[in-house]
Amino acid sequence: MGKIVCNISMSLDGYIAGPDDDNDKYPLGKGGERIHEWVYELKSWRSLHGLEGGIDSKDGEIIAEIVESTGAMIMGRRMFDSGEKYWGDNPPFRNPLFIVTHTVPEITSKGGKNIYNFVTGGIESALGKSKAAAGDKDIAIMGGADIIQQFIKAKLLDEIQIHLIPVLFCGGKKLFDNLGDKQIGLEIIRVVNSPNVTHIKYKIVK
Amino acid sequence: MGKIVCNISMSLDGYIAGPDDDNDKYPLGKGGERIHEWVYELKSWRSLHGLEGGIDSKDGEIIAEIVESTGAMIMGRRMFDSGEKYWGDNPPFRNPLFIVTHTVPEITSKGGKNIYNFVTGGIESALGKSKAAAGDKDIAIMGGADIIQQFIKAKLLDEIQIHLIPVLFCGGKKLFDNLGDKQIGLEIIRVVNSPNVTHIKYKIVK
Repeated sequence: MGKIVCNISMSLDGYIAGPDDDNDKYPLGKGGERIHEWVYELKSWRSLHGLEGGIDSKDGEIIAEIVESTGAMIMGRRMFDSGEKYWGDNPPFRNPLFIVTHTVPEITSKGGKNIYNFVTGGIESALGKSKAAAGDKDIAIMGGADIIQQFIKAKLLDEIQIHLIPVLFCGGKKLFDNLGDKQIGLEIIRVVNSPNVTHIKYKIVK
Repeated sequence: MGKIVCNISMSLDGYIAGPDDDNDKYPLGKGGERIHEWVYELKSWRSLHGLEGGIDSKDGEIIAEIVESTGAMIMGRRMFDSGEKYWGDNPPFRNPLFIVTHTVPEITSKGGKNIYNFVTGGIESALGKSKAAAGDKDIAIMGGADIIQQFIKAKLLDEIQIHLIPVLFCGGKKLFDNLGDKQIGLEIIRVVNSPNVTHIKYKIVK
């Protein structure tokens, strides 16, 4: 099997969503879209979303690499609920998606029925089911923060790639929170930088 | 005149000191020395501290560049108090140091008398006095977090270079805190990476 990884955009002050996040009005928190702007112009991202055009760049290669290396994905229910209405009948996932949830919802979108898998047994159950689906490829933990924190605390996450965005949010949802009171060691695997974002891939020392 | 800058080591989760910082027992907070380890082996850092040996590396060039470009320094009183006893009669500063304080202390170290300047009028007063001393070179805001935050809030800081360290502190003193509730824009000026640390220099959008 591959690795268990996370690729996520974060402000320099550690936020992955703006303040006052609300699934209906501000799914990314107020101003939270700022940390995702770097992907919108990328050809590799646009093609995932059925959009034409876009540019090739080092940032685009990062997205293409993630798509290529991922075999299955795990996501929290709250993130799924806020995303599903936008993803619609042709969700931007090319892999089985395992959603950690307490109760299994009714799905209205057609396309998603083939790739959405609801798991009620927590992160370890989702991980077990995603392993068979991922084959030799990586399992990507998509978020939100709570699910990622659970994987780090359980020492299940192998690597985390931070897309570090040049902005201070000064409030919102922190990525690295609720992780206990002991230092967690990291090792730098790779740095790729562009004018818009600094991609740093870390191994998590267990 | 030059720019008003800050160069500071920070954990990936945003801390510049560990928890339970205490000037006597843990001046860097518990475990806080982890984010400074990258400098100890560097020839350019060791020579500043009167130590022989050490290695040349990209990290060392960063330190040498900071030393070369700095003409004056501003520091908070608490940081000064925790440092002075270690710096002794031959402090590792080659420039005038302006210490923001409420009251002017008695100094016991000999060497420092020539470069320590105590300023009781707050950060703007310290800035005014340091400008003449800096000449064409930069004024470096050394810390602690509170002084750096005051400079950012007052829109006086031009650039900040983060030496981003691969570790999660999971607690301690945050660099970016108390900055209000509005996003602060940054622009990436330069990224230099080594196996131990990622140096990212940002312009602060005012």
